[in-house]
Amino acid sequence: MEKIYIIGIGLIGGSFAKDLRKCYPKAQIFGIDTTPSHITEAIRIGLIDEEATISTIEDADMVVLSIPVDTAVKVLPEVLDQITDQTLVIDMGSTKASICACVTTHEKRRNFLACHPIAGTEFSGPMAAIEGLYRGKTNIICEVEKTSFKLQEKALQLFTSIGMRIRYMDPVSHDKHIAYVSHLSHISAFMLGKTVIDKEKNERDIFDMAGSGFASTVRLAKSNPVTWTSIFKQNKKNILETLDEYISNLTHFKKLMQEDNFTGVHKEMENTNHIKEILKGIE
Amino acid sequence: MEKIYIIGIGLIGGSFAKDLRKCYPKAQIFGIDTTPSHITEAIRIGLIDEEATISTIEDADMVVLSIPVDTAVKVLPEVLDQITDQTLVIDMGSTKASICACVTTHEKRRNFLACHPIAGTEFSGPMAAIEGLYRGKTNIICEVEKTSFKLQEKALQLFTSIGMRIRYMDPVSHDKHIAYVSHLSHISAFMLGKTVIDKEKNERDIFDMAGSGFASTVRLAKSNPVTWTSIFKQNKKNILETLDEYISNLTHFKKLMQEDNFTGVHKEMENTNHIKEILKGIE
Repeated sequence: MEKIYIIGIGLIGGSFAKDLRKCYPKAQIFGIDTTPSHITEAIRIGLIDEEATISTIEDADMVVLSIPVDTAVKVLPEVLDQITDQTLVIDMGSTKASICACVTTHEKRRNFLACHPIAGTEFSGPMAAIEGLYRGKTNIICEVEKTSFKLQEKALQLFTSIGMRIRYMDPVSHDKHIAYVSHLSHISAFMLGKTVIDKEKNERDIFDMAGSGFASTVRLAKSNPVTWTSIFKQNKKNILETLDEYISNLTHFKKLMQEDNFTGVHKEMENTNHIKEILKGIE
Repeated sequence: MEKIYIIGIGLIGGSFAKDLRKCYPKAQIFGIDTTPSHITEAIRIGLIDEEATISTIEDADMVVLSIPVDTAVKVLPEVLDQITDQTLVIDMGSTKASICACVTTHEKRRNFLACHPIAGTEFSGPMAAIEGLYRGKTNIICEVEKTSFKLQEKALQLFTSIGMRIRYMDPVSHDKHIAYVSHLSHISAFMLGKTVIDKEKNERDIFDMAGSGFASTVRLAKSNPVTWTSIFKQNKKNILETLDEYISNLTHFKKLMQEDNFTGVHKEMENTNHIKEILKGIE
């Protein structure tokens, strides 16, 4: 690896850059970002060496796409148009069906590997980049059979050396399941934050009463609205399904309370308590 | 302080016992609990010295009530019936209107101080007790004027020495506000857990895809159903109000998505993003 291009140098791309530096200490890392201050900061803190543009990536050994998913579907074909047969292109997006669909018939399809590293924080921008963000995390790879074997191998070597666990999945199943375990949590947190903030307009002291439980439940409401709007747009159908189920579960819980059916309320909570075992592997 | 009785020796009472040991190293600590194994464990790990029963508390210098709030309203009058004029009785419950109401006319009302320490974890039982749980946390005290000045002073000295910040509030406002910043978060987490678990019945591998964001949002769904059923029962009216607002915000978000109004979706998230500043003081 001599030349690596990272398109979108925020939390995800920036943290990946830190790992790339360790794996390929001699490589030159170029950054492409539509926010000029991201480039300046990323150079200042050493995430990248230089700014670049998409028109100059023909000499890339590797291109990493870590931009909002609705932009990625426009940029990926442009990237594939310009690279050599040896270039590995990966994306890091939270949705996988659209990105896979946008290059199905592209003549360079075999240069692309669709990835979703299940890692992140609620912060954004190059300053939020963390060393070791991907260590011990799962990387979901979609349509692996459509990537050339040589480039698969190259990518897997990299992922293994930064400590990621690999899982293969088809893009449609990915988007369906991730709506439950990731996208819905974000909406639940954002709307919890909204409900409490709306209240606070009149009752100023309310947050003084909040504890670590509230902080944990609402944490994801700090997430970047640009990133998440594009995810919600692309995974609309699946997310609407999860939202319907969530709202219906909340409405049922409300009904139990209204009817003073506290045996029912207790049962609802007891049945959900085994989330303890499920979470054991995650936290 | 020579004799301290803790009624309910779980996470809250047990953690408080650890602080009491430090403040009053010579005091004898007695435990009362309806779960026999709690007593055995609490003695084994040194939270308490001996088991006791409510009928033996007449020699107490201090009595701490840390039991589910619907039981506390039954036990508190019994406790007050038996203590001396010098005994300080405090409770640690998450609702305050009912407990204050249940002793309004009790002749020993001045021996009772209604407290709600905003502290806890999602775990329960004596083994979950943590040293320093209350350090730096807020203790909300209700109807302070109804407690004798001497006993107020005694309690405040204790709270200060274990590092708590004191805040005074009337019990009705307490219950209204805490419904937003604490009780609603629990329902939101429990129902998120339920929604995802229900799905998992058919799709076994789904949790493999969950990350730290999901774990954080759903964390409170590990909480004790007995504790929380009694809180929901006692604060029903306020909680139903918060649930209505939460469901209506989620439904509005869903509608924006259905109408492809992603400018609206973005705005909803952006408006809630300032939760960052609000959370700064809590985490």
